[in-house]
Amino acid sequence: MSVSGYQETGVPGSEEIIFLPLGGTGEIGMNLNLYGHAGKWLMVDLGISFDDGHIPGVDVIMPDPAFIEERRRDLVGLVLTHAHEDHLGAVQYLWEDYDCPIYATPFTAEVLRRKMAENGEAIPRIIEIPMSGHVALDPFDIELITLTHSIPEPNALIIRCAAGAVMHTGDWKLDPDPIVGPNTDEAALIKAGEDGILAMVCDSTNALNPGWSGSEGDVRDNLADLISTLEGRVAVACFSSNIARIESAAKAGLENGRHVALIGRSLHRMTEAARETGYLQDIPPFLSEEEAAALPPERVLLICTGSQGEPRAALSRIARDDHQTISLEEGDAVIFSSREIPGNEVGIARVQNQLTELGCRVITAREHEIHTSGHPNRGELTQMYQWIRPQIAIPVHGEIRHLTAHAELARECQVPHTLVSFNGDVMRLTKEDGVQVIDEVYAGRLALDGDRLVPYDSEGIRERRRVAWNGCAVASVAVDGKGQQVANVEVTVFGLFDQTDRDRDGLVQTVERAVARANGRTRKDDGQLSESIRVALRRELQALTGKRPPVSVHLLRV
Amino acid sequence: MSVSGYQETGVPGSEEIIFLPLGGTGEIGMNLNLYGHAGKWLMVDLGISFDDGHIPGVDVIMPDPAFIEERRRDLVGLVLTHAHEDHLGAVQYLWEDYDCPIYATPFTAEVLRRKMAENGEAIPRIIEIPMSGHVALDPFDIELITLTHSIPEPNALIIRCAAGAVMHTGDWKLDPDPIVGPNTDEAALIKAGEDGILAMVCDSTNALNPGWSGSEGDVRDNLADLISTLEGRVAVACFSSNIARIESAAKAGLENGRHVALIGRSLHRMTEAARETGYLQDIPPFLSEEEAAALPPERVLLICTGSQGEPRAALSRIARDDHQTISLEEGDAVIFSSREIPGNEVGIARVQNQLTELGCRVITAREHEIHTSGHPNRGELTQMYQWIRPQIAIPVHGEIRHLTAHAELARECQVPHTLVSFNGDVMRLTKEDGVQVIDEVYAGRLALDGDRLVPYDSEGIRERRRVAWNGCAVASVAVDGKGQQVANVEVTVFGLFDQTDRDRDGLVQTVERAVARANGRTRKDDGQLSESIRVALRRELQALTGKRPPVSVHLLRV
Repeated sequence: MSVSGYQETGVPGSEEIIFLPLGGTGEIGMNLNLYGHAGKWLMVDLGISFDDGHIPGVDVIMPDPAFIEERRRDLVGLVLTHAHEDHLGAVQYLWEDYDCPIYATPFTAEVLRRKMAENGEAIPRIIEIPMSGHVALDPFDIELITLTHSIPEPNALIIRCAAGAVMHTGDWKLDPDPIVGPNTDEAALIKAGEDGILAMVCDSTNALNPGWSGSEGDVRDNLADLISTLEGRVAVACFSSNIARIESAAKAGLENGRHVALIGRSLHRMTEAARETGYLQDIPPFLSEEEAAALPPERVLLICTGSQGEPRAALSRIARDDHQTISLEEGDAVIFSSREIPGNEVGIARVQNQLTELGCRVITAREHEIHTSGHPNRGELTQMYQWIRPQIAIPVHGEIRHLTAHAELARECQVPHTLVSFNGDVMRLTKEDGVQVIDEVYAGRLALDGDRLVPYDSEGIRERRRVAWNGCAVASVAVDGKGQQVANVEVTVFGLFDQTDRDRDGLVQTVERAVARANGRTRKDDGQLSESIRVALRRELQALTGKRPPVSVHLLRV
Repeated sequence: MSVSGYQETGVPGSEEIIFLPLGGTGEIGMNLNLYGHAGKWLMVDLGISFDDGHIPGVDVIMPDPAFIEERRRDLVGLVLTHAHEDHLGAVQYLWEDYDCPIYATPFTAEVLRRKMAENGEAIPRIIEIPMSGHVALDPFDIELITLTHSIPEPNALIIRCAAGAVMHTGDWKLDPDPIVGPNTDEAALIKAGEDGILAMVCDSTNALNPGWSGSEGDVRDNLADLISTLEGRVAVACFSSNIARIESAAKAGLENGRHVALIGRSLHRMTEAARETGYLQDIPPFLSEEEAAALPPERVLLICTGSQGEPRAALSRIARDDHQTISLEEGDAVIFSSREIPGNEVGIARVQNQLTELGCRVITAREHEIHTSGHPNRGELTQMYQWIRPQIAIPVHGEIRHLTAHAELARECQVPHTLVSFNGDVMRLTKEDGVQVIDEVYAGRLALDGDRLVPYDSEGIRERRRVAWNGCAVASVAVDGKGQQVANVEVTVFGLFDQTDRDRDGLVQTVERAVARANGRTRKDDGQLSESIRVALRRELQALTGKRPPVSVHLLRV
């Protein structure tokens, strides 16, 4: 057994466990975690985030996996904790670069296969592990412990190696009545704690929230009570991965004499994956959109995508009366069985206003207890620390405020070592020294821009933001060897003027004047002549608009 | 007295009152209200809204006043209800087009004068009306009734004319302890109701919220309790116009042995206007930033702009450790004495995370009762309807959801006529028929783009959004009369490639090939040749990037 460690060689040693997050720490979404031991790496989750509109034209961002790509021959596998996009959404973009096996429980595996098939991607090698199963990925032995969350089959991983055991919680809560799937495997958690856990890498999303997060069972009862009072069409918007919520809404509809239809593609993918793997077994087949549209209002319940106001989702189309099949009207009700993810408030308000304008009643989780978070509040975190009693607590999956609050809570729970870390921090976990950041590696982001993956801070994207603020312009001038203009000047300005705006004409004259005024030496020097034109045009544009657009000059020497 | 009404002539008649909102109805902010009677128009408020980032490069939007501009000789005046930006912020951009007198109470007048002086604008004729004063603007007689809100001197207007009386509430709440300024003039409200109010045009912001909105007095006590427990520097972020909140924070600091400094320009403008008009009289002069920076942490309280995460505001600069004078560090606390305005959540979270990273404790209105809204909840609306008992209720100042809920509440309060209206709806208010929409006029928006006011939906801005998503490109080709290329081709692409990206080289070849492949007729026709080049280049860009950027071609015929 080698005793050389990461710090000396850049390769994880046999006496240590390395934890290296490349995504998910200090930000929401985009999980990518690496564990290193004895020269090998294990990847846990590979997720995306949806951009908040910061970069126009970019919807999807993900961690830049450059670090592990360079070490892919030492990557023993990817284990997915559960099927949320921020944990598996980047597989379809990045997996062909690794081509090592992917391990997941049946539902997660089925969701991934369906997603990749929909996108026409080659389907990777997915090896199914049963719930509560084990998998040996030398030098690691991984045990799954069943938790509860807002999707079926959320798993904590106990990652064991010669240097100790780390518990990676993934996303979880302690739901006494999760409706779909088994309850939290308390016995396994207690046993793991008794066996000894060196470090717990744990969900921080709700570390600022007191108490307990609540139960899907209560949401089911409240949804059923609410729906029993409604008379027209009822639409329920929720996350398509929340199979328990879908079951609750469907049952509430069925109990009230309503037939249930799913509106939105991802709902079909998720519910089909759920039925395929043994969930939703006592829910009858859903109606087609056409069948639902043909029923009397009081006989229908629609489960819709679009709870976050996403413009292309089903509910947004319905709200702007632009859906191919479904219309809502006076007397109908729309239930938002969801939270508002920060950044989406304006889009959600737009949809709710449009629905109100159609005459619909809009019902949200503000007025009714019809949503519960899938993440642990402080009470649940405390309970977990009491069970696991790790030597080291590493908060992940949250913004800095959440990580900091979580670390404080862990200290209050008598955890000897805690660390608020950032993506790219290489942490050595040892029994002797607790946790130390021993190195920092590149941990950037990639953006899906059109159909290319480009660095999030690429010049092209930064330039596009500048142009989005200021517009841009190109002037073209053909000159002969002496620098005399030999054709009409052309100027194109993007994003500053209307078609009818007469300011454009003056711009051609500005360019012509700049050429005419240049002295003999400047005229013969392409660089100098271009620069004089560029400066004159930019000055004129600034005078006209108060903005400083980037300007390019095409000097064509005939 | 003419009996011809608006519907026949487009001019308000003598038997009717016309209400026409051009801003503030079905949206937040940007109030511009018109009242018409006997051939004349009265304007109430002229506000801006801050763009939510929807249009890159545009911060400020405002109602397009085209309708009243065309009738400005019949405009008898502008009355400002209070000094919030969404009620007077557009004066500096639009007022020179009218040049009719502006009426306001002393604090509002002082704020407007200072704002315009800061911006180097000519200061308009502002005629001060005392609180509870009257002003006759023939054919209207206007009475001010003192209300409470989150700024000094909020006024309801009772607008009387031969056809009846309309109450325009402006923004208000019923605060039993407003701290600064007099309390709601209940007696005047009750008397106005007894005298008879035809229509009430009323604030809808909180029409979805049950109960009462709370009191500045309670916020003062809670702020004082909180601040007494803190040890390092204390920074309080609040709206600069909330003079009561500033007084509460300052007093809490003073009582705990702290000196108080204001950080942020608008705080100086607002507090100076307040002192000038008789408020904040028992608060000692504020320290300068430099004096505050020199004090020991436990002796200083900073009141800061930037509670909404605005990147250029004082608190954002401090959070990213980029403020010229003030630094915060481990052991300091930042109190957000404010709500999160929808759309600002992501920016606020960024600032709070940065402050946490500096080691500051971040305290928000989620955990402590340190903010109260300035708008009436349902309980206060109900109380107002009981006092005023109008024949007609017209909800304004809110999104459609709020207007709709407000109209329902008014009906529950036995108001015979209610109407949810939109900007541009011309409403006739009469005793006989209640309220009817008799016409619809243009009610667009203007955007301040650089230093120009342009239509919000102008081609230039829409093009900029397209370019922000897709980039853009210009190719220049010089050809002779036969269409033979006579100089190097130049291609500029904005916003798609990095400097080092080799894709650019292929683009020149694409253009050259398109020229070379054109047949004789195409080569001689500028339009056809340009279009062949444009299509070829666009196709190539789409193949390279998956995007469809706008492409221009400069064909220079030598």
